[in-house]
Amino acid sequence: MGKAIERLKGLTKDVVLLEHAIATLSWDQETYMPRLAIGEKGEQLALLQGILHEKITSSEIGKLLEDLGASDETPEGVFSDGNVVDSAYVREVFRQYKIQTRLPKKLVTELALAASHSQAAWIEARKESNFSLFKPHLEKILELTRQKAESIGYSETLYDALLDEFEPWISTREVLDIFNSIQPWLTEFIGKIGNLRKIDDSFLLKEYDISRQEAFGRRVLQDMGYGYDRGRLDISAHPFTTTLGRDDVRLTTRYQKEFFKTGLFGIIHECGHGLYELGFGENIKGNILASGTSLGIHESQSRTWENIIGRSMGFWKYYYPFLKEYFPENLKSVSMESFYRGINKVKPSLIRVEADEVTYNLHIILRFQLEQELISGSLSVGDLPEAWNLKTKDFLGILPENDSEGVLQDIHWSMGAFGYFPTYALGNLYGAQFSSAMEKDLNMDYILEKGELAEILFWLRKKYIATVLPDLQRSLLVILQEKN
Amino acid sequence: MGKAIERLKGLTKDVVLLEHAIATLSWDQETYMPRLAIGEKGEQLALLQGILHEKITSSEIGKLLEDLGASDETPEGVFSDGNVVDSAYVREVFRQYKIQTRLPKKLVTELALAASHSQAAWIEARKESNFSLFKPHLEKILELTRQKAESIGYSETLYDALLDEFEPWISTREVLDIFNSIQPWLTEFIGKIGNLRKIDDSFLLKEYDISRQEAFGRRVLQDMGYGYDRGRLDISAHPFTTTLGRDDVRLTTRYQKEFFKTGLFGIIHECGHGLYELGFGENIKGNILASGTSLGIHESQSRTWENIIGRSMGFWKYYYPFLKEYFPENLKSVSMESFYRGINKVKPSLIRVEADEVTYNLHIILRFQLEQELISGSLSVGDLPEAWNLKTKDFLGILPENDSEGVLQDIHWSMGAFGYFPTYALGNLYGAQFSSAMEKDLNMDYILEKGELAEILFWLRKKYIATVLPDLQRSLLVILQEKN
Repeated sequence: MGKAIERLKGLTKDVVLLEHAIATLSWDQETYMPRLAIGEKGEQLALLQGILHEKITSSEIGKLLEDLGASDETPEGVFSDGNVVDSAYVREVFRQYKIQTRLPKKLVTELALAASHSQAAWIEARKESNFSLFKPHLEKILELTRQKAESIGYSETLYDALLDEFEPWISTREVLDIFNSIQPWLTEFIGKIGNLRKIDDSFLLKEYDISRQEAFGRRVLQDMGYGYDRGRLDISAHPFTTTLGRDDVRLTTRYQKEFFKTGLFGIIHECGHGLYELGFGENIKGNILASGTSLGIHESQSRTWENIIGRSMGFWKYYYPFLKEYFPENLKSVSMESFYRGINKVKPSLIRVEADEVTYNLHIILRFQLEQELISGSLSVGDLPEAWNLKTKDFLGILPENDSEGVLQDIHWSMGAFGYFPTYALGNLYGAQFSSAMEKDLNMDYILEKGELAEILFWLRKKYIATVLPDLQRSLLVILQEKN
Repeated sequence: MGKAIERLKGLTKDVVLLEHAIATLSWDQETYMPRLAIGEKGEQLALLQGILHEKITSSEIGKLLEDLGASDETPEGVFSDGNVVDSAYVREVFRQYKIQTRLPKKLVTELALAASHSQAAWIEARKESNFSLFKPHLEKILELTRQKAESIGYSETLYDALLDEFEPWISTREVLDIFNSIQPWLTEFIGKIGNLRKIDDSFLLKEYDISRQEAFGRRVLQDMGYGYDRGRLDISAHPFTTTLGRDDVRLTTRYQKEFFKTGLFGIIHECGHGLYELGFGENIKGNILASGTSLGIHESQSRTWENIIGRSMGFWKYYYPFLKEYFPENLKSVSMESFYRGINKVKPSLIRVEADEVTYNLHIILRFQLEQELISGSLSVGDLPEAWNLKTKDFLGILPENDSEGVLQDIHWSMGAFGYFPTYALGNLYGAQFSSAMEKDLNMDYILEKGELAEILFWLRKKYIATVLPDLQRSLLVILQEKN
């Protein structure tokens, strides 16, 4: 059996190498690619996705999984001489093998090609705030995504199959239950907060020099433990983190004149993702487990860094004096207390990535509901912008003025990433549990006020191993369900 | 037969897409990749090279080539309903198919992996001017390259097989004959020039502001017709041009404090390469022919732009006033006449890419001789630095002070590109013939003084089609041989 595991790791190594090659092309597409290269880039990506599909569905992998006893009942396999990481390894390969063998190669390459063109169209449409430029692409992507879900199969709804790609081992119904229980509570809570004292956050809207934004952002990245020997920070239309190699995890951001609506917290967020993938030990680093067990768990890392750490009083007790040195004019009459309140102000707003912690999950629930309707066919793409606006009004009490700040704000659907959004909210919920555990082990205020972010990273990294083992995600979910 | 050609084009399209994907990873390696990513990057490249090898050696391609009548006697195939471009297409596919089917896949991937690591080692060794850091890598590459040549086969020497990769349809003996006839003449000519009047080129050694260098370089690129919709200009250790897609041909350069030793002319040189690949019509664009018929022809374009156009009096009559605006301090007491003489001064120097037009070919002949000895085994890698220095002294009368300005100056051998160097000199010789034809058609002085570089590009582009057709390279060679 030991041999079977080793052989399986050998075969899936090529899968990971190909994924990283694909990530390189995608990273290039989002950062440095010349405009007109998009046409062929899509063909290149489709070809590589097709080859990847062949690799992961190879009959030899199927045979090895069978030998190791992996099945729907025992996805981790049944073998005695492996360790707990090997079990997780088999589980993950089995999951990917099962999904991919159900997908026709033609559909995989068609989706890759369509996604590449659709992303480019989304960038243009968003720039011009013109949904009609994006509409035919989204229709195509949606149609192919439905075919994908049909091919994969599902227990209750098509959406189950899609959710599984990003948050495995959980059903749409379970997510619905969690979201349904928090949504009314959130809406009510937001109302209460709105009636509390007024917070002056006018400093958020000032113009912050871009090169100083970058310099300050890079300083925080460095303190967090992110280094350029194994990473980069570049600019893209939609911030993301991507893994191009076991020693190559890159972040992107975008700079706007405001620094604290997305800029800085976006960088911290992406760095949270990056540190997670960079932090696995040698037994996981660079292999199929090194992207984590689920996107929800992944988001728990980024959201914790962004919100629980990055917006905390302790964090700013250390950083605010430095921040004032970078932006003396903008912040000269803003006390640390006012700054802290300003960046934590709860107020319904239109852009998800700029939303405060409290309203954020409502943005997710909105997308979660709309994408289920799109997938089930009860909502057409043509009716999507209006549905978006109405639901925004309903949940948040405000109305987008144009598609750019409405339905066109996120890249996900353009990539065919339906089922991705709920992982952000789950990440918040998992993250709260991690943070609660961390606070028991560490004197957080003391650590943050000293600027010792390395201590936090050290604590998190001791837990990373758990995040790819078979049981963690489920146990976090059980806790969530029990709380409801 | 028409169907066979179309099917062949379909199959080889994947080959081109893969080549472009590989080029993307290589470009990334040379420009933006984090340092520690090199380990896995080599594995990714090796995997993709292996897949590429599988694609180009597919039995279906072999069968189609057979159906089309391609053979050693009729490499262009024997079919009646194709056109002259189709003949060139079949010839090129047949050539690649034949070479690749003779190479074991294992050797292809080993070479790719070794080349990736070797390039990284070369960068370090060059930086520290320490050949010993590079030596074991070069030995490995050399051993694999010999295996490669053995596998491909050759008529007289191993080197024939390697030369064919870069300059097909020509033998080592033919190149030797050409080089042997020009080398004594060149050495004598350089002696004569050295005894003529002194030229003051001290302005070349002044420090030129890097951001202005870049701005002026980009201005010339724009005038030449290079645009960022289909290209980029970035920084790398060794300047190069690479094709990542039919609409994605990127240049790199490096900036030193001096601008006219390599900087500006390097940019013009690379742009010459780039314009060539960007300039093919729809029947060639993006397919297997679009890299040109040979590297010598490719170099004829870059060397013509760099030297015959970029160092001409007409060019500087137009550009010198602008140049003085960019660098008023450095050039205030330099007349255009002095500038022109300075950038064209003939004087033996150590660095190939900084060499003047007259001594340049001696640098090439030096490398050509040494690499033949390395491949035949009559020279060991350990003895290479000394052999390099002795030959430099012999040909140019000067001695490198360290390996950085000697044997470590070029990237080529680190990539396994043995047989590449002669194409630069052949490119000069082909380029001289192109230029001679161009001067008959165009009033070059008038065009250059007006800064109408687009006219030159237009003329060259009318000829590009000829550069991939079966007979051009041979006819240029025949003219060269007759002249000797």
